[in-house]
Amino acid sequence: MSAGTVYEALSVETLPERLKDVPALASKVGSDSAAWDVKEVGDGNLNLVFIVTGPEGKAIVKQALPYVRLVGDSWPLPLYRAYFEYHALTRQAARAPGAVPEIYHFDEAQALIVMEFLSPHVILRRKLIAGERVDGLAEFLGTYCARTAFRGSELSMASPDKKADVALFAGNVEIPAITEALVFTDPYYNAEMNHHTDELEPVISQLRSDIALKVKVQQALQRFVSNTETMVHGDLHSGSIMSTDTDSRVIDPEFAQYGPLGFDIGMMCANFLMAYFSQPAHRGNDLADYQEWILGVIADICATFEAEFRALWATERTGILYPAALFEDQGHDSTPACDAVLADLWRDAWTVCGIEMHRRCLSLAHNADFEEIEDIALRARLEARNLMMGADLIHKADTLADASAVCAIARDFNGKDVL
Amino acid sequence: MSAGTVYEALSVETLPERLKDVPALASKVGSDSAAWDVKEVGDGNLNLVFIVTGPEGKAIVKQALPYVRLVGDSWPLPLYRAYFEYHALTRQAARAPGAVPEIYHFDEAQALIVMEFLSPHVILRRKLIAGERVDGLAEFLGTYCARTAFRGSELSMASPDKKADVALFAGNVEIPAITEALVFTDPYYNAEMNHHTDELEPVISQLRSDIALKVKVQQALQRFVSNTETMVHGDLHSGSIMSTDTDSRVIDPEFAQYGPLGFDIGMMCANFLMAYFSQPAHRGNDLADYQEWILGVIADICATFEAEFRALWATERTGILYPAALFEDQGHDSTPACDAVLADLWRDAWTVCGIEMHRRCLSLAHNADFEEIEDIALRARLEARNLMMGADLIHKADTLADASAVCAIARDFNGKDVL
Repeated sequence: MSAGTVYEALSVETLPERLKDVPALASKVGSDSAAWDVKEVGDGNLNLVFIVTGPEGKAIVKQALPYVRLVGDSWPLPLYRAYFEYHALTRQAARAPGAVPEIYHFDEAQALIVMEFLSPHVILRRKLIAGERVDGLAEFLGTYCARTAFRGSELSMASPDKKADVALFAGNVEIPAITEALVFTDPYYNAEMNHHTDELEPVISQLRSDIALKVKVQQALQRFVSNTETMVHGDLHSGSIMSTDTDSRVIDPEFAQYGPLGFDIGMMCANFLMAYFSQPAHRGNDLADYQEWILGVIADICATFEAEFRALWATERTGILYPAALFEDQGHDSTPACDAVLADLWRDAWTVCGIEMHRRCLSLAHNADFEEIEDIALRARLEARNLMMGADLIHKADTLADASAVCAIARDFNGKDVL
Repeated sequence: MSAGTVYEALSVETLPERLKDVPALASKVGSDSAAWDVKEVGDGNLNLVFIVTGPEGKAIVKQALPYVRLVGDSWPLPLYRAYFEYHALTRQAARAPGAVPEIYHFDEAQALIVMEFLSPHVILRRKLIAGERVDGLAEFLGTYCARTAFRGSELSMASPDKKADVALFAGNVEIPAITEALVFTDPYYNAEMNHHTDELEPVISQLRSDIALKVKVQQALQRFVSNTETMVHGDLHSGSIMSTDTDSRVIDPEFAQYGPLGFDIGMMCANFLMAYFSQPAHRGNDLADYQEWILGVIADICATFEAEFRALWATERTGILYPAALFEDQGHDSTPACDAVLADLWRDAWTVCGIEMHRRCLSLAHNADFEEIEDIALRARLEARNLMMGADLIHKADTLADASAVCAIARDFNGKDVL
């Protein structure tokens, strides 16, 4: 059942011997470990990821590393994040059935999760760079975000269960600390690990001298660190989504914590907006069509989210917040209450969206959408549009009517050169 | 050192024998327990409180009861609240030195705290009903609230320490649940344990049919249950403050949890406003003078709070929020950020203030300021002013300029009969 009680990183060579006695793995791939083919495919920053192929099937073995891979062993990270990933995956599976990979086995000492091999799924970010479409993507993501947000909150959960869960995830300290620094703070000053395209200097200088902007960003950080409204995925970008042409799943929730209801959908929309702004470097004749498809996905994600959230409000409002005793039972429509919750949620979401658009061009961890653009002048021009729209969203987060308004702003910046 | 490992309520008769071997108690009152005089003086709802007088001095022994005293054993309450009270008192002592009684001994199994006997301090609510003044009261309370709010937040605390503390206090479930129901929800519908002065029916009917009001109250509940900005006392009314004519202390923090920065000061101001509105039943010729003294205390509490909070912002902003790296180190004034934090804080405070004014006349636990008025018609008239002002505060919480504006509203309602 165990691969040892002292942590040791797996390798392609040692994995079969060390995991051959894990029944949940053997039952998926076949019990003859000598026949297993093992490939290491991790392209993230924090983990080893192995595909184990045996005579009877395939499985994923994901193991946390004790340091940030991108930086090396100079940045140690606790292995206990696998424990939080495991707990997050079980909660996501319960709250949004079918949305995350199935878990076969968890080994806390080895910081190791054996889980479903998704095939032929690939990382969504690769598909967006390649100009591929995914049927049902917006419906899947909007539903996932609404269900995990609503069902992880005291709109739905019993308060003792929710408080126990907040206490559990409050132990996830170092991983959310990455978000606190790299997402919310580093982009807005000359932090040590930052890097950016040189040509962006004038835009960056404008952002970093905008005190009102920095205040709004830090207010969002205050809510991120202290507002335990629901369990958030915490890192829901297009590298945390895997898709075929018709099916999608959400992966990699090691940044999970209790946080604001609008956090995940805001960060996710930012990643679609960055895909949108980067397209002129990746597309030919189909540019306009594909960019409009991306904006359509954003609009549909948000519309699906609203519809699902309102449906859950009507049918699953079993927590202590906005109880039927105060509204429906008195003959009082609770729609104004739901409107108020959603207004705050979208304010948080669009603020986080703008911040994510900034940090992916200014802080440590950039994304391939822009990074793979070899023409530096073009990259800078596209990144600048993205940065300026991010600031616009942060300033207007309180007053945006809906996702269509956001898409209109994107079209506007897409046609305008700020450098 | 221990009074046994199985919980057993103390009595006046058993206390000396059971606690004679607690050195911290013996060293305060004298080691000859046969010479101890013991009185039970608890007038709260949840606890036994003994004054132990010995040849060398006095001490308080406070022991949690396993049920709500006001309701009897039909409402059980976990004894572990003494554990949270103990942890809250140690944090308050560190964050606001001198503001709370000194702890001599804590016995978790017996849910028992031995602490400083305050003398000649009496419960502030009694002094307010008797028309007595307390020098330095506003400065003490404003400073206490600002220090505990600021120093218990990530404006000041290291994030890992704050997260560990949030996890610890997330275990305090049943006691905050009383606040969630009795303060935020029960007043706004015909809840089972409610009671009120019959003559208030027209006012109550108006409050309970105000859907926009109920939405704002439930938004405040959403923030109360999910916004862990700082450690709040959680029950800071005038029965949780003890004063002489010149000295004050804060007691009884068993409702402590991490909650909104503005919660304590909002609840406290409500209790001064209720003292204000009830005065026509308790005073003679000095009515106008004493009422103005109370409003002056409210204005001075808030002014002291603001000044102290801004001073701590300037000198102790060591947490991850609004870091100097983004403001002062860039030559950027952080005052707009402090203004934004305080604006949200006061919005929360005045909303909670209005809610507390409602629940003390409509829900289970009323207060002596109104309850001791024997002339029912007069009581109803004064309670009605209080209820209507509470609604006004909740509606205007976003836009009130400062405490002077609140005092002006109080004077207005004090001169107007709404029944």
